[in-house]
Amino acid sequence: MSDLHEIINRIRPTHAGAADAAKQRHAGLAKPPGSLGLLEKVGARLAAIAGRCPPPVPTAPALVVAAGDHGVHAEGVSPWPQDITRLMAETVCSGGAAASVLAKAVGAQVVVLDVGVAGDPADHPALVRRKVVAGTRNLRHEDAMSRHEAERAILAGAEVADRLIDDGADLLVTGDLGIANTTASAALVAAYTGASPEAVTGRGTGIDDETLALKTRVVADALDRLGGDPDGLGHDRDGLGVLAGVGGAEHAALAGVVLAGAARGIPVVLDGVIADAAALAAVALAPHAGGYLVAGHRSVEPGAAAALGHLGLRALIDLDLRLGEGTGALLAVPLVQAAARLLSDMATLEDLGVG
Amino acid sequence: MSDLHEIINRIRPTHAGAADAAKQRHAGLAKPPGSLGLLEKVGARLAAIAGRCPPPVPTAPALVVAAGDHGVHAEGVSPWPQDITRLMAETVCSGGAAASVLAKAVGAQVVVLDVGVAGDPADHPALVRRKVVAGTRNLRHEDAMSRHEAERAILAGAEVADRLIDDGADLLVTGDLGIANTTASAALVAAYTGASPEAVTGRGTGIDDETLALKTRVVADALDRLGGDPDGLGHDRDGLGVLAGVGGAEHAALAGVVLAGAARGIPVVLDGVIADAAALAAVALAPHAGGYLVAGHRSVEPGAAAALGHLGLRALIDLDLRLGEGTGALLAVPLVQAAARLLSDMATLEDLGVG
Repeated sequence: MSDLHEIINRIRPTHAGAADAAKQRHAGLAKPPGSLGLLEKVGARLAAIAGRCPPPVPTAPALVVAAGDHGVHAEGVSPWPQDITRLMAETVCSGGAAASVLAKAVGAQVVVLDVGVAGDPADHPALVRRKVVAGTRNLRHEDAMSRHEAERAILAGAEVADRLIDDGADLLVTGDLGIANTTASAALVAAYTGASPEAVTGRGTGIDDETLALKTRVVADALDRLGGDPDGLGHDRDGLGVLAGVGGAEHAALAGVVLAGAARGIPVVLDGVIADAAALAAVALAPHAGGYLVAGHRSVEPGAAAALGHLGLRALIDLDLRLGEGTGALLAVPLVQAAARLLSDMATLEDLGVG
Repeated sequence: MSDLHEIINRIRPTHAGAADAAKQRHAGLAKPPGSLGLLEKVGARLAAIAGRCPPPVPTAPALVVAAGDHGVHAEGVSPWPQDITRLMAETVCSGGAAASVLAKAVGAQVVVLDVGVAGDPADHPALVRRKVVAGTRNLRHEDAMSRHEAERAILAGAEVADRLIDDGADLLVTGDLGIANTTASAALVAAYTGASPEAVTGRGTGIDDETLALKTRVVADALDRLGGDPDGLGHDRDGLGVLAGVGGAEHAALAGVVLAGAARGIPVVLDGVIADAAALAAVALAPHAGGYLVAGHRSVEPGAAAALGHLGLRALIDLDLRLGEGTGALLAVPLVQAAARLLSDMATLEDLGVG
């Protein structure tokens, strides 16, 4: 799948019949109706994705950590030096990052995908080099990427996801690295959902009130720059145009992961606000892709709530994480597996001679 | 440990120095400070319990499902027939219950402890018979148990936990079975925390407004019956007196599990409101026991919030579960393990040449 239109054309709606079968099955399991809460909804979604009930239990998760730098870093929106992106890409590869530890715990293969890091991470078997930009341009003043660059980054993410699925991955997990990427995420969420910059801009990994005010102005300026206002969204860009205008290369790559997962019928577990923003891009390009998503983690970034609301998702993990890398999504993997296992392995009320 | 005072006397405060070491270690790991949210707090607690940092990663969880019936069932507070308690005890043993499926997923040994079931569950290797009462008396009108019965049920739970620890368990997980036990839990939470019956009485596994009003009156009557008001708690009972007065045998047994875990220095993961109420009983008997608790799951029962607030705990899992059996606590096990692994296995900023 090397062409974006080809990928998008392959994405089919998930199977409503299988979701209904999962709901019916849950009603007949050995427990009070509805008592497994959100796990019942996730189970129904997994059934809809697989097209059968009970759905298979995913046993081979794979984490794609898309990495990129951001020209908007020059505005002073983050306290961290830009080179941390490269350094953490190397740390995820070498096994010392939080995501590395959590990936090992759930048996997830890890790929670090450099689509836009300013520096060059050292060679490592887990590193895939598909650099589209060496850091994006400053989204406050100009488009962060060209449409062609954004498309190439999407295809890089899709290619990696595709290969992982070929190798047996049955659950894709999104991760990200990119100093200043909560700024780009806020701009993406505002542009895709119509939410105000104030409503979606947050403190990222930790900034003071003054920097938050600056960051909010930067997001507002970026949205003003997109121009137009055809549908109350504050601009007249299409999905790819928004992504190129205010997104990061890692957002584009994760949108590609979502699209490839949807095209291949594999569920995609979203991490925090970066993944949520990327998912909005994917759904703008291919509305049916939304059915293949599971929200792993509720980021404390305000944009995450707006994005998940727009996507109609509720997150499985809510632990005040604000780290990225895929940490929240990885923590959700055992819950996703549990949702499938419960549908497969529980006794029914009929087995028990009740109801 | 066959004597309650002996168990209580063995419980020491957790190690504040190890908790401080965990906080310091977290500040130096390869991530923004505080970015692992609640997992950092749980990691510090595990260090405090183990008395060292990093704490060991628990790899041998064991689930104790304490089961008992309730005389208050006669008031019509639950839509379920009482015999479901026996039936579900058998279903947990035979592997078809939600808790069985989730226990298998995390590699947890399962013990079903009959301390108060009205019927007799069939023999099974996972069943331990320590019946103290064949269902409690009706807590609305008389003490549910005698002090001696409550103490025997505590000791039964402690004995089972002790044996599991002897066999290698390094993480105790609480579960419960008992039709009508959210009524007893509400009464316990109100009596131990001073909260009003209205504030702590909920819908259990699913009741209508009329039944909820009845259930709240039943809880209020039980509290009135306890009598006295020395400290604003609405009664003058000691910890064991409250437990005997309005608790279930399974609450007492789970309090015993908590006390044994604390006495042996093993963390105890609480499930929902039944376990939370049992933990209040344990802490009333031995205040230092509170340091050994991890709140696995946030029950939708209002009493859970009151109990966790009183215990100073925040739950790891919040998925609208209302099933019991230990399901919420089992889902939290991978998160508890992750909290310990992150402290052990992550690179430090110093390793990376940063900070």
